[in-house]
Amino acid sequence: MIPRSEIWSILDEYDVKQITIATICSHSALQIFHGAKIEGFRTLGICLENRKRVYSAFPKAKPDILIEVNAFSELLSENLQKELIEKNCIVVMHGSFIEYIGAKNILDYFRVPTYGNRISLIWESNRKMQMKWLKEAKLRTPKEYESINDAKGWVFVKLHGAKGGKGYFVAKAEELEKELKARNMSAKDVIIQEYVVGQRYYLHFFYSPIETEGLKVGSGRLELLSMDRRIETIDEIYRTLPHIIPDYMDFTVSGNIPIILRESLLAEAIGMGAKVVKASQKLFPPGIIGPFCLETSYHPDRGFTVFEISARIVAGTNLYPIGSPYTPYIFDEPMSTGRRIAREIRKAVEIGKLKEIVY
Amino acid sequence: MIPRSEIWSILDEYDVKQITIATICSHSALQIFHGAKIEGFRTLGICLENRKRVYSAFPKAKPDILIEVNAFSELLSENLQKELIEKNCIVVMHGSFIEYIGAKNILDYFRVPTYGNRISLIWESNRKMQMKWLKEAKLRTPKEYESINDAKGWVFVKLHGAKGGKGYFVAKAEELEKELKARNMSAKDVIIQEYVVGQRYYLHFFYSPIETEGLKVGSGRLELLSMDRRIETIDEIYRTLPHIIPDYMDFTVSGNIPIILRESLLAEAIGMGAKVVKASQKLFPPGIIGPFCLETSYHPDRGFTVFEISARIVAGTNLYPIGSPYTPYIFDEPMSTGRRIAREIRKAVEIGKLKEIVY
Amino acid sequence: MIPRSEIWSILDEYDVKQITIATICSHSALQIFHGAKIEGFRTLGICLENRKRVYSAFPKAKPDILIEVNAFSELLSENLQKELIEKNCIVVMHGSFIEYIGAKNILDYFRVPTYGNRISLIWESNRKMQMKWLKEAKLRTPKEYESINDAKGWVFVKLHGAKGGKGYFVAKAEELEKELKARNMSAKDVIIQEYVVGQRYYLHFFYSPIETEGLKVGSGRLELLSMDRRIETIDEIYRTLPHIIPDYMDFTVSGNIPIILRESLLAEAIGMGAKVVKASQKLFPPGIIGPFCLETSYHPDRGFTVFEISARIVAGTNLYPIGSPYTPYIFDEPMSTGRRIAREIRKAVEIGKLKEIVY
Repeated sequence: MIPRSEIWSILDEYDVKQITIATICSHSALQIFHGAKIEGFRTLGICLENRKRVYSAFPKAKPDILIEVNAFSELLSENLQKELIEKNCIVVMHGSFIEYIGAKNILDYFRVPTYGNRISLIWESNRKMQMKWLKEAKLRTPKEYESINDAKGWVFVKLHGAKGGKGYFVAKAEELEKELKARNMSAKDVIIQEYVVGQRYYLHFFYSPIETEGLKVGSGRLELLSMDRRIETIDEIYRTLPHIIPDYMDFTVSGNIPIILRESLLAEAIGMGAKVVKASQKLFPPGIIGPFCLETSYHPDRGFTVFEISARIVAGTNLYPIGSPYTPYIFDEPMSTGRRIAREIRKAVEIGKLKEIVY
Repeated sequence: MIPRSEIWSILDEYDVKQITIATICSHSALQIFHGAKIEGFRTLGICLENRKRVYSAFPKAKPDILIEVNAFSELLSENLQKELIEKNCIVVMHGSFIEYIGAKNILDYFRVPTYGNRISLIWESNRKMQMKWLKEAKLRTPKEYESINDAKGWVFVKLHGAKGGKGYFVAKAEELEKELKARNMSAKDVIIQEYVVGQRYYLHFFYSPIETEGLKVGSGRLELLSMDRRIETIDEIYRTLPHIIPDYMDFTVSGNIPIILRESLLAEAIGMGAKVVKASQKLFPPGIIGPFCLETSYHPDRGFTVFEISARIVAGTNLYPIGSPYTPYIFDEPMSTGRRIAREIRKAVEIGKLKEIVY
Repeated sequence: MIPRSEIWSILDEYDVKQITIATICSHSALQIFHGAKIEGFRTLGICLENRKRVYSAFPKAKPDILIEVNAFSELLSENLQKELIEKNCIVVMHGSFIEYIGAKNILDYFRVPTYGNRISLIWESNRKMQMKWLKEAKLRTPKEYESINDAKGWVFVKLHGAKGGKGYFVAKAEELEKELKARNMSAKDVIIQEYVVGQRYYLHFFYSPIETEGLKVGSGRLELLSMDRRIETIDEIYRTLPHIIPDYMDFTVSGNIPIILRESLLAEAIGMGAKVVKASQKLFPPGIIGPFCLETSYHPDRGFTVFEISARIVAGTNLYPIGSPYTPYIFDEPMSTGRRIAREIRKAVEIGKLKEIVY
């Protein structure tokens, strides 16, 4: 693992007046580039050939420099890393980094300074560490059952390594064995979780260690920037009722819709964000930096249950390139999460605290 | 009941150049404070300790003065009322006033001038008066059945005094007796309504008695500011199909999503708003003032059915702190319902008509 | 059919400094007027008496000139056409033109210059031509079955000439005969399509033949302005589960909700738009001009299937009077599809290319 000190010594060589904000062209890159441009940064995108048209189609979010690669994993190549460092790049990571490159590879081989605390990617990408983090924060999480015999009530069955929720299913614990058999599976192939009934709210937070005005958490400030609901294939299953077409039983995310919470639930939502920040500062100091998301389910009988945490910008923030129903309460300007990141880097440069937000 | 004249004589003592807009910190308070600040008012919030973090987290919507109470019902205390009056407060009421303090208590004991016609709260909070109002407006409403024997077709069964729709259920009239028995209930415990099939649209109106340009209704103007759809626990019940988990059968509202209507349906929607205003002017002159909401269900065979009316700002407007898909057609600036209220108060002060919009 | 040359010779007589943007008052007229006003045009609306209140209620979208008619079909009358031509009107067509006047009538009898290529209305309003267009573009479309015996798997059954999706239903192919019988129908009464499982995304494109910067397609530029999901009666069918109320089985559209796609799916989405433009340029040169919409369904196993194409502005764009989650990536100003049209007309006038976008 590349230690933070090594990244910092690379950063020491940077011309901080000429920083380039870079990312791979996927996930939330449009938003990141758009925000960086507004905040006055040069931008650089690592792009696959068949996606170039997306950035041509959106000129205000098109990176100033576009480097074509055959696979996103080329990001780890010596030459490309060297080029990024020469261009004073700070890389903003998003979901596609974990998906296409892998958290461990980034920590072991990627020497280019990245925005945020890259250690948090490890905590996100390992399910058991994620649960440890949420337990440390004392948040309610779905129970996980070691064996079929332990399972109780309604369970949600996930496949190891399944991409995007394909093949996941809901079952009654007492019918689980039968259901697995019907799918030619055994308990070893799956993760068995408590199925948590409720309404999904994906809460987009931002933690700034350098801002202090606002809601103080640790020595920094916590912001609730927005929220969304993910759209999965299963979300139209009801449209063929009374028939139920099995092809709908797929939890792959294809998009997002905007959503807000009742104001009376915001105190609990913000409280959860604060606990997650504090737990991260204890578990992997200096803890989470920048955007993160709590994937929750709310039921009036139980409050919120957190079933997942994303330790970086999430795609649901793409709904809000010029602000959400919450950002006007924090900022006078249109503020996306992408712009928020760029602004944070700009401010950190201005006050000489860039190292605090880079690893 | 405190007569309007008494409130007006208190208002007579106000320094109208130093008005403070006040509300209790819940429901739509962020929006109300944010709007009031933009319109140049001082703001004051009555807050519970465990909710203070919400207003810290949103500095642009944080009230200038924050008074901590142990319960919102303290609003009725002599001391607090005196303080609010001393500070030239005009209180903007929302759903939490009815929920935590009660319409009757406000009318009997709250001497602080409030924005709007407080009588309308009584008409909102009593189901039979609400239906009388909607009938007077000649709007289609769900039938209400006095007994199980009268019930026909599909019925929606509500519990007296149930908070947030917990335990409500849908049934076939002929199976109603059986369904009640299965829940250990009798007909006395419930309200039996026609179940109205359709798509829900919650229409947010604003009635200004002092503006005249635009759509004239009575001697004032009607605005359709926005609309939303409420999110209730039941709204994810389909996600476990073919299983149906009873825990989803709960109609508690936890949030909102933005929505628009076909333009061809706006004429009918606006017409309903106009009828409600006119009926209110007949039933409790001067009638409804400021924001109100019609909770409707639309079906192509029947048009709109109104199943509820809210005689004040609704939480669905929180989706639109800088405007909805409809406000750009009325205002040049970003306009929320909260800001609309503040602007109305400002204009009323300017043209010397504050009494017309205060009770 | 009135040839383009005849329309152009009428346009030749226009005072292009005094152009009026006109449409019939329905569908997306508020958006079209609002956009035209911002771009500095005079506006004219053809309106039914009972809809006038809509435009009074939205003063910033109220046409400068309002002509009342008893039926929208009066648009074809000699007098009205003459008046529109005298006022230098360019008519922006939308869904209500097809619904109330008919594509063929417009082509045969409407001499007033219209924005876009009116031939595309014919390709939109004839289902077989629509499918030919989509096939030419090599997009995946739902299979259509000539007879019950050909049908396989899940099918979607549509009624000839049914307004708004009333009576449509989903069935298993092997049960189709029984299902038709239960409805007193025969195969002749219906269109039998493959039922395509997936999440619906309605993609709003804009093709400019006069802009070249951005994503070049043919000799012009393609823009992806926004997307929505239509709300149909069936979309609340799950709310009475475990009961299923047949009255919900209706596919009439009553409204729209905002939505975004995963960034990784945008390349495919934009590619589909480009193919549709190129196919149109081959099938009916100069092809589609201005706004169009692809009604799609996305499934992770199959990608997008296009089940319909609208060759003009769609009502889903009404969600975005001051821009969508995508327009900030193309424009610095708040940009609706209505404003985009007006801006295109303005630019075409400025650079002397008005004929290129008018038929």
